[in-house]
Amino acid sequence: MKHVAILGSTGSVGTSALDVVSAHSEKLCVVGLAAGENVERFSDQVEKFKPSAIAMATSGALTSVQNRLQEADIDVKSASFGTEGLIAVATHPDADVVLCASSGTAALEAVLMAIDAGKTIALANKEVLVMAGGLVTELARQRQVSILPVDSEHSAIHQCLQGQADADIKRLILTASGGPFRGQSGAALQDVTPEDALRHPTWTMGAKITIDSATMMNKGLEVIEAHWLFGVQPNNIDVLIHPQSIVHSMVEFRDGSVIAQLGIADMRLPIQYALSYPERWDGHLPGLDLARCETLQFQHPDHTHFPCLKLAYRALKGKAELPIALNAANEVAVEAFLNGELAFMHIPTIIERTLDARDLMSPMKIRTVGDVREIGRWARDFSNEQVTELELKQ
Amino acid sequence: MKHVAILGSTGSVGTSALDVVSAHSEKLCVVGLAAGENVERFSDQVEKFKPSAIAMATSGALTSVQNRLQEADIDVKSASFGTEGLIAVATHPDADVVLCASSGTAALEAVLMAIDAGKTIALANKEVLVMAGGLVTELARQRQVSILPVDSEHSAIHQCLQGQADADIKRLILTASGGPFRGQSGAALQDVTPEDALRHPTWTMGAKITIDSATMMNKGLEVIEAHWLFGVQPNNIDVLIHPQSIVHSMVEFRDGSVIAQLGIADMRLPIQYALSYPERWDGHLPGLDLARCETLQFQHPDHTHFPCLKLAYRALKGKAELPIALNAANEVAVEAFLNGELAFMHIPTIIERTLDARDLMSPMKIRTVGDVREIGRWARDFSNEQVTELELKQ
Repeated sequence: MKHVAILGSTGSVGTSALDVVSAHSEKLCVVGLAAGENVERFSDQVEKFKPSAIAMATSGALTSVQNRLQEADIDVKSASFGTEGLIAVATHPDADVVLCASSGTAALEAVLMAIDAGKTIALANKEVLVMAGGLVTELARQRQVSILPVDSEHSAIHQCLQGQADADIKRLILTASGGPFRGQSGAALQDVTPEDALRHPTWTMGAKITIDSATMMNKGLEVIEAHWLFGVQPNNIDVLIHPQSIVHSMVEFRDGSVIAQLGIADMRLPIQYALSYPERWDGHLPGLDLARCETLQFQHPDHTHFPCLKLAYRALKGKAELPIALNAANEVAVEAFLNGELAFMHIPTIIERTLDARDLMSPMKIRTVGDVREIGRWARDFSNEQVTELELKQ
Repeated sequence: MKHVAILGSTGSVGTSALDVVSAHSEKLCVVGLAAGENVERFSDQVEKFKPSAIAMATSGALTSVQNRLQEADIDVKSASFGTEGLIAVATHPDADVVLCASSGTAALEAVLMAIDAGKTIALANKEVLVMAGGLVTELARQRQVSILPVDSEHSAIHQCLQGQADADIKRLILTASGGPFRGQSGAALQDVTPEDALRHPTWTMGAKITIDSATMMNKGLEVIEAHWLFGVQPNNIDVLIHPQSIVHSMVEFRDGSVIAQLGIADMRLPIQYALSYPERWDGHLPGLDLARCETLQFQHPDHTHFPCLKLAYRALKGKAELPIALNAANEVAVEAFLNGELAFMHIPTIIERTLDARDLMSPMKIRTVGDVREIGRWARDFSNEQVTELELKQ
């Protein structure tokens, strides 16, 4: 029996993970759940999975949950909130695997402490590695802890690398659906509304990641994540547009052979693989029937209309602070776009200006989460100013 | 340095294998070469690769080769012909790997003796496993000898299975180009000439295998081969038509995840993999650029117009003699077709009649190569009679 703690249980990945736990209740049990402020869904999850530790983002949300649980006569051993709550769930003494599926950077400290406590990490949160890839992977190496990818692309690469020598990797090929605006002209992209951008063609996900998918920044963050997960240099990580989202990613080896992982577009597959690894368990979803699929297409990305991908490469190849600045600026820009304060085409503008400004500053060693937070704060402040400036001009 | 002996060095796979040896001369050297009757090409190969043992199919061919080598002042330690020659090359004391790339069943004894002598087998010859899969794999198991596939499909599956547990395999999916007549109607297939059938859309291969590809019997033989190589039951081996020949084959695992191997259609890739295994060595061929490929299509096979595939499944699921009868009848039928003595559409008719007749006979245990040969002879005689009978009717 594997004991699982889930950070971000009410989100898209978190709920899918609990589906996987339900389907494999003889192999998985939940010891801790943490979520943001979705009181109703979280209370239902606690009733169903009876974790011994729970956490919510705020004390208010936690109190509401506790009231509901009291009514239902459900007892939990430990209940806390905020960063402390995340840490309590992530370092629960019984947890074998911590699934980090919360969004943003709130879970960074909790993930580091879980690694320090020897927990296997199943990582669905891109920001953790984008912001603190060096710190996280170095600590994991010291503690001999595995960081297993949950993103479908990285799970695919992880699967393609089984039984293969690292030295034989020629390049990783991350596939990208291309998002809802693939193939559209610059003119069409001028008028994109948040509603347009939230309509993803193949995956159902949260709002932030869906916009990231529309700008291709999501793929940029994944390139950075892949670098840290697999120790592959940026020049050996490629992106191919593959609108059907059937081939989840590929690895080319030194002899020219390419190994690919394919499957239906359902997050429960890579989640289950991360939780079952190194085993595979029976699937409960319809299999892939390639004869009933559309034909599979592959194209090079359109860097002119979707400059975010190149910005991510630039950040990864540059100073250690740049990925942090990239991520923070992107968060600010996407938020502004979703609030109707920024044009879709200006998301990369904000990010580029932030990278440019950071490049002019003297380099900084990143030794602690505090350093990461400091750079993140600077980048948020700077990019917020840039949003205001662009707004005023319009 | 790996020492290689090649059976069938002047054929399509044999010459490609020598290209691989040339490209990796620091890792591979040739200790033995055996071929049929192509004196000129074989003499050139011996001059270039200087094996210590050589063999030709007939004493006449061997003498011609020896004369040429004498003129060129090239010395070989051992020279022989026929089955004895094949065995001498296959069991050469210095050989680590024996690449069996000869066509037909002539090499069966030599392969068994190479296994008995502890040589790793790189197998490009389908007939060996189709005719004697039980004998060959049992001996390999006893001697702890690896049989590495060279066929692009089986090499793909072998690569997809690296680092995976056998118990997790749900099904093997062999891809098939569909041959030159994919999608054609029964009426069009009535008038197929040997010339039409020899024009394969994606692979350049010998005449027999190209016709087998046109009838889909090639894929049937590969299903049987896959069963023996990977220990997977016939019901868990599927075939998908994939006209682009980019995805060389796939494996679906119990969790629904599919791992595929992709590459350009060049036999030097799987040959090199078999010779480098368990390592991978640098490739010397252009890489796969999926963005420049056609879109990838997958379809279920058309069993109505291409009944050979179902006949192969029937043989594999039936008595142990049936695959031998299938293969021998197919050889006879394809030869008759190439000689203009049999219509293309009648190739499966000959095979089916032979299977029907064998099914009516009492079952026979296959304990020796002699047993295999006896059944093969019976099937050749029977199917030759059927060819004559069909000819007389026309």
